[in-house]
Amino acid sequence: MIFLDNASTTKAYEECLDIAKKYLFEQYYNPSAPYGKAIEVSKDIRSAKLKILRLLGGDGKIIFTASGTESDNLALLGTRKINGSRIIISQAEHPAVYNTAMELKQKGFDVVAVKTNNVGRVSISEFEKVMTKDTNLVSIMHVNNETGAINDIKTLCNVAKGINPNVIFHSDGIQAVGKTKVSLRTLGVDLYSFSGHKFHAPKGIGALYIKKGINLNPIIFGGGQEDNLRSATENVPAIMSLAFALEKTINNLDTNLAYANEFRQMITKSLNDDCVKIISDDNSIPFILSMALKYVRGEVMLHSLEKYGIMIGTGSACSNQKQSKRIPQLMQLSPEYHNGIIRVSFNSFNKKDDIEYFIKQLKLEYNTLIKYVRG
Amino acid sequence: MIFLDNASTTKAYEECLDIAKKYLFEQYYNPSAPYGKAIEVSKDIRSAKLKILRLLGGDGKIIFTASGTESDNLALLGTRKINGSRIIISQAEHPAVYNTAMELKQKGFDVVAVKTNNVGRVSISEFEKVMTKDTNLVSIMHVNNETGAINDIKTLCNVAKGINPNVIFHSDGIQAVGKTKVSLRTLGVDLYSFSGHKFHAPKGIGALYIKKGINLNPIIFGGGQEDNLRSATENVPAIMSLAFALEKTINNLDTNLAYANEFRQMITKSLNDDCVKIISDDNSIPFILSMALKYVRGEVMLHSLEKYGIMIGTGSACSNQKQSKRIPQLMQLSPEYHNGIIRVSFNSFNKKDDIEYFIKQLKLEYNTLIKYVRG
Repeated sequence: MIFLDNASTTKAYEECLDIAKKYLFEQYYNPSAPYGKAIEVSKDIRSAKLKILRLLGGDGKIIFTASGTESDNLALLGTRKINGSRIIISQAEHPAVYNTAMELKQKGFDVVAVKTNNVGRVSISEFEKVMTKDTNLVSIMHVNNETGAINDIKTLCNVAKGINPNVIFHSDGIQAVGKTKVSLRTLGVDLYSFSGHKFHAPKGIGALYIKKGINLNPIIFGGGQEDNLRSATENVPAIMSLAFALEKTINNLDTNLAYANEFRQMITKSLNDDCVKIISDDNSIPFILSMALKYVRGEVMLHSLEKYGIMIGTGSACSNQKQSKRIPQLMQLSPEYHNGIIRVSFNSFNKKDDIEYFIKQLKLEYNTLIKYVRG
Repeated sequence: MIFLDNASTTKAYEECLDIAKKYLFEQYYNPSAPYGKAIEVSKDIRSAKLKILRLLGGDGKIIFTASGTESDNLALLGTRKINGSRIIISQAEHPAVYNTAMELKQKGFDVVAVKTNNVGRVSISEFEKVMTKDTNLVSIMHVNNETGAINDIKTLCNVAKGINPNVIFHSDGIQAVGKTKVSLRTLGVDLYSFSGHKFHAPKGIGALYIKKGINLNPIIFGGGQEDNLRSATENVPAIMSLAFALEKTINNLDTNLAYANEFRQMITKSLNDDCVKIISDDNSIPFILSMALKYVRGEVMLHSLEKYGIMIGTGSACSNQKQSKRIPQLMQLSPEYHNGIIRVSFNSFNKKDDIEYFIKQLKLEYNTLIKYVRG
């Protein structure tokens, strides 16, 4: 089984099982309870937050949510905005930001999607064109989930604050955390979302970084947990696993980057430029490689490779119908490649042999499938 | 270690670890991915939903959320309501409903909290007084989290629908599921919330039942998972654990009810009526027993019992300052009992010996503490 769809989700680190064991069967107390054993658990959560802030170089606080999507929603819906004010996103945002922004548009906000290039990267000059003094919120993803393209968040944030010092700058870092070095202080963002299951923590846990001095309104109301910003009994095992997995992933990042770069080179060098067009460019993170097959449908290739135990993506696993039309258009592909987009994404569990096997089978299947297309 | 705070949270069933193992390390695929292994996972989720509907006797669908609180929020905020229309809750609702309703009040809805008696039960006649034709939403908890009082949801629902056939009736069943027989069909509710960690599933997973024909708007936007009602990668291990834990708990319900009844009898019979006033009445579920100590603070007793490894509650673990003032007033306690509320709550792991030890230490500590109070 060769899993090359790690941008969609990842296998958890084995250590997460011990963490689950500890907090499901031993220290299973409700962190809001007043007895000592429960207070210990709430202290563990606090330590996890401090560890995450240290690992990501942030000055502020961490709010745990149930997903990257919820973090994005809290960021977009929870920021205090003047009714009708401008909100800027990018054309290539994940549906968690894109569809939430469309909700805000329906509520009367002036939502503008800034143009991106063919890999989903926002150009600074395009951003300058739309950034206005009355822009209350900007939300631009750090790393694109389809192509791995890295946005220059630091510069975008500087430009935004230069025009409106009070603008809230959010970045969806769901594909960035664990796959590229992140210093929240350097990026300058006010809000930053990430999700545990993208870096070997379990599903069902996300987080939002909130810079010191930034105030949000909650979107889920109740007992007042998480600084009154996200009510619900804390998901302790998942929280502790996220903090652990983040540390392990960041500690291994240089090694993993080297592997991913090698895998990427192996693939790009082996493929015929005409039959398989590489979409991701050199300024993308090496963990995500997007390409387009000529005349062969991405979905057909996905199912063909599945027979050999190889799993790849055809685009965002959480994408709906609208999203899957939006992305190929943005990639500016010529029509013969339009339906052929596939995405391979690596992690620390992948081996060189796996990649070689993938390349071999991709070529084999392409040569078979293309015959049917050409008749 | 004697854990008598099971209304706050519970220890997970051991089997949940195997379920976590399976879905974190073997079938860890994103259920939205198009390859066969991922489709198998999405089928498992579908089976879990059908199992839950069967176990709770519902005609409709199950939407998984991250908590009971989120389910309550989705129910209250997601129902389609005419601006300014009446919303009825009860005075004794958990903050997840109460504070969400207060949000809606701020948005201009006519939120009415129907009177409850001293155990938090809604009287039908009080409800009839406030239920109007323009009431769009009713949200009344099934079982009170402080006292275990059971509301007559079936009758309340009938009364509501008799006055406005289009009213949406939601019930927070977070303390009911697993602790009393629930037939959603018989109750007649449109929406019903519950939470896994209250019946030995892990934290971080809740669900909302939506009766056939009822349409909601999402409160979290994104990739369109969960019938477009709750976007985020599904928390597969927790979902599968919830379905498992629900089945096991319901299968053991009669046995557990017998134990809980016995525990309750043991406690109520052993305590001096004047020193310790039993609040929960005979129409409450036996798993939750609320009482008030004369002159002795509940929190002081909690910490005194902690020394012996006994953990009890002083009220909702998720309660904030406001809530902790609201409840004693509702209980109509005379001033000498006002600060003395404690709550013990049982589960299937508790033993008769534990309860005997609790009674012994409670008496001992009470007799010691009362001396300080009296000087």
